[in-house]
Amino acid sequence: MSSKDNTISFPELIKLKRDGGQLSRVEISTFVQGVTSGAIQKSQIGAMLMAIWQKGMTDEETLAMTREMMNSGETFKWPKEWLVVDKHSTGGVGDKVSLPLAPALAACGCKVPMISGRGLAHTGGTLDKLESIPGFKVNQSVEQVKQILEDVGCCIVGQTERLVPADRVLYAIRDATSTVDSLPLIISSIISKKGAEGLSALVLDVKFGRAALYKDLNSARRLAQSLVTAGNKLGVKTGAVLSRMDAPIGQSVGNAVEVCEALECLKGRGSDDLKELVTNLGGYLLWMCGHSGTLESGKTEIAVKLENGEALKKFEAMLVAQGVSADDAHSLCSNETDYFEHMKRAAHQTELEVLDDGAVLDIDGLALAEVLHKLGAGRTKSGEEIDHSVGAEILVEMGQQVQKGQSWIRIHHNCPNLNPHYSDLQKALVIGSHDKYETVSRVAEFIHPDNHNMS
Amino acid sequence: MSSKDNTISFPELIKLKRDGGQLSRVEISTFVQGVTSGAIQKSQIGAMLMAIWQKGMTDEETLAMTREMMNSGETFKWPKEWLVVDKHSTGGVGDKVSLPLAPALAACGCKVPMISGRGLAHTGGTLDKLESIPGFKVNQSVEQVKQILEDVGCCIVGQTERLVPADRVLYAIRDATSTVDSLPLIISSIISKKGAEGLSALVLDVKFGRAALYKDLNSARRLAQSLVTAGNKLGVKTGAVLSRMDAPIGQSVGNAVEVCEALECLKGRGSDDLKELVTNLGGYLLWMCGHSGTLESGKTEIAVKLENGEALKKFEAMLVAQGVSADDAHSLCSNETDYFEHMKRAAHQTELEVLDDGAVLDIDGLALAEVLHKLGAGRTKSGEEIDHSVGAEILVEMGQQVQKGQSWIRIHHNCPNLNPHYSDLQKALVIGSHDKYETVSRVAEFIHPDNHNMS
Repeated sequence: MSSKDNTISFPELIKLKRDGGQLSRVEISTFVQGVTSGAIQKSQIGAMLMAIWQKGMTDEETLAMTREMMNSGETFKWPKEWLVVDKHSTGGVGDKVSLPLAPALAACGCKVPMISGRGLAHTGGTLDKLESIPGFKVNQSVEQVKQILEDVGCCIVGQTERLVPADRVLYAIRDATSTVDSLPLIISSIISKKGAEGLSALVLDVKFGRAALYKDLNSARRLAQSLVTAGNKLGVKTGAVLSRMDAPIGQSVGNAVEVCEALECLKGRGSDDLKELVTNLGGYLLWMCGHSGTLESGKTEIAVKLENGEALKKFEAMLVAQGVSADDAHSLCSNETDYFEHMKRAAHQTELEVLDDGAVLDIDGLALAEVLHKLGAGRTKSGEEIDHSVGAEILVEMGQQVQKGQSWIRIHHNCPNLNPHYSDLQKALVIGSHDKYETVSRVAEFIHPDNHNMS
Repeated sequence: MSSKDNTISFPELIKLKRDGGQLSRVEISTFVQGVTSGAIQKSQIGAMLMAIWQKGMTDEETLAMTREMMNSGETFKWPKEWLVVDKHSTGGVGDKVSLPLAPALAACGCKVPMISGRGLAHTGGTLDKLESIPGFKVNQSVEQVKQILEDVGCCIVGQTERLVPADRVLYAIRDATSTVDSLPLIISSIISKKGAEGLSALVLDVKFGRAALYKDLNSARRLAQSLVTAGNKLGVKTGAVLSRMDAPIGQSVGNAVEVCEALECLKGRGSDDLKELVTNLGGYLLWMCGHSGTLESGKTEIAVKLENGEALKKFEAMLVAQGVSADDAHSLCSNETDYFEHMKRAAHQTELEVLDDGAVLDIDGLALAEVLHKLGAGRTKSGEEIDHSVGAEILVEMGQQVQKGQSWIRIHHNCPNLNPHYSDLQKALVIGSHDKYETVSRVAEFIHPDNHNMS
């Protein structure tokens, strides 16, 4: 890919970026190869990441960094006739979208090698949610991923040792050194991993709002445009959806409870909010990869697969392929089932009451997530255990007229009592006059692949 | 000294400085203690050093950092009646000042626990020079240092394991991460080590010029003033001398050849240039610590000790105390001696001729040092062996009228021939019309302890 030039030392590389200089492709290659091989010291990686955080990177540098990281390990190769697609989300509260989306796309004939992460935030990541199901194995080899795509069409797995090893090193150090929120580092981390998956099309779900990394639409749009440009330049047809992240997605937050809601969605039931995100992201992918003629027809096809049970069948097959017993998988995917016969139920379910009559004007997703984190649903540092049974079911909908005394949330927990968290939880619900309620859709904007200006 | 507050995490500390914030004394203490104990990861140290390089530190932060580093290990305690003094130089070509200075001060009744370094530059450091003498041991325990000061009055030793351990960690990482040239990091490194020596007075020899870290007087003055302020705030009476560093100090550059020149100085002979620095730095210390009433009387006393052999006697006793055989030490310190009976002589001594008639207008110390480095007199990275026998004797003086064909330099080397370096060496000598020659003194300026403005 690039020739290696050993004449520049690591301290000199750091000095270049320290002083605001632009690194050449060869210099970036030297850095990334040093990270992968371990030739560069951890202290030097920390200093370089801080220099990048301070001085930024040009579009050319970011693209070179992304490409070098992508090529730091193996990359997937697929049969030419496959339409291989994936989604990446910047992370939200109650975001179980991947669980119904991957099988719905597989039901449309696409191949979805979804590589997900664990949560380092308030609640678990996609892998943590799936591990609520006994037997589910997130670690699959490159060969196993290929076989599952062949047989089922979709899988949701952890990052393998061999894909983008440079990112694993850099990500852990970024977390320890307060250099996570740097645009070039975010872009190269996300796009290198997706580039290594050998995708036909990629959709990015970039969140903005109170419970998102970026609080306002403009900064989220800037990130989305940069990601879209980098993805397309790397040869992956990439588009983005800008979606609101204030109230939780759907009606549940946690791990096992989110699996239940995802299964409801796959059974054609559940909240319109979750369905809106799944059909938009899925329809957009079908359109981008050429499977559907328009965005609308793509969305309709996803909705149909959720309604007619085909997506559910794919999900059941995926569970079995990833280690869940056929009986458990079948029962979870049956219309009438008690999900908690198959997943651990928390010791306590405590419902909280609405304190006033009125309309639900707001549900603060971040506030809920912070309480659930304290109850054990998330982790503070990499490798920590999390309690899959902890979570919240939201029993009211945005805009709904409610009455004092009515239950609005059911907390699944393993604490003797919820009293220490009671006031934080109640503050998350805002009740007021219905004429103050404004309906907003979850999806705010699309950034199309053609929109290539990296500004 | 300071209470430890564990509520702030290392990533949060880094984030504070990353964003240009001011760290509190407790936060700096947390960082330095983390460095010393190993609780903070190397990647985090690298990121923090780069953040400090980028954002700087206030005077309060620098002082807190210096104090915390000083207290990261043991500090020396001395009998109250001792006048304990030391000198620190920012490093120059041919700088053998410590060798005559320490015994001259001891001959005046001062105690000099001189902790020196090895060279990481073109030629060796003070410790390397002394190791040209067979048997000389630079590693002395805290107890041994105390004993030698009691018996002799001066020693020149390496940094012990127990003094300022935080600096050893930080210094190695600064070197690897291109964060050496940061004013707060330079100040805290130098002053913490000198503070731990428990000094009554400290003089700093801050160099400026072509062969110095700081090329111009103004930036050197800024460093000197900051160092002087930090030292005094830490309770050590500290002053600085700003000295020119263009031509080499004295008439020799290398390791063994510099020991010879230092011995000549201790025998009341040798160049006025070296003597000027030794008497100024020593006299200034005598004045600051209250031993002498004026700078001038201090300078005179040092000059007398060099003339009357008392300094030489102290040097001989120090050599013996630090492991040199009594016979070797006595012979080296005798008036008529062949120094190279006691130190390794290089295989070749090659003299170069002056190419034109005229006056010596300039001798480029940096250019000479770079050639000697290539010949083996210096090291490129910590721990490398150096060749003590390599060096240069300069046979002419600045301003001297010379003739074509006359020898101007004698290179001691172990290479088959000097041809590859011939032109670089000849370029170091500038000959011209005598009316273009200006006499300049080595010492340019003093920064007194009273001059406390840290600006």
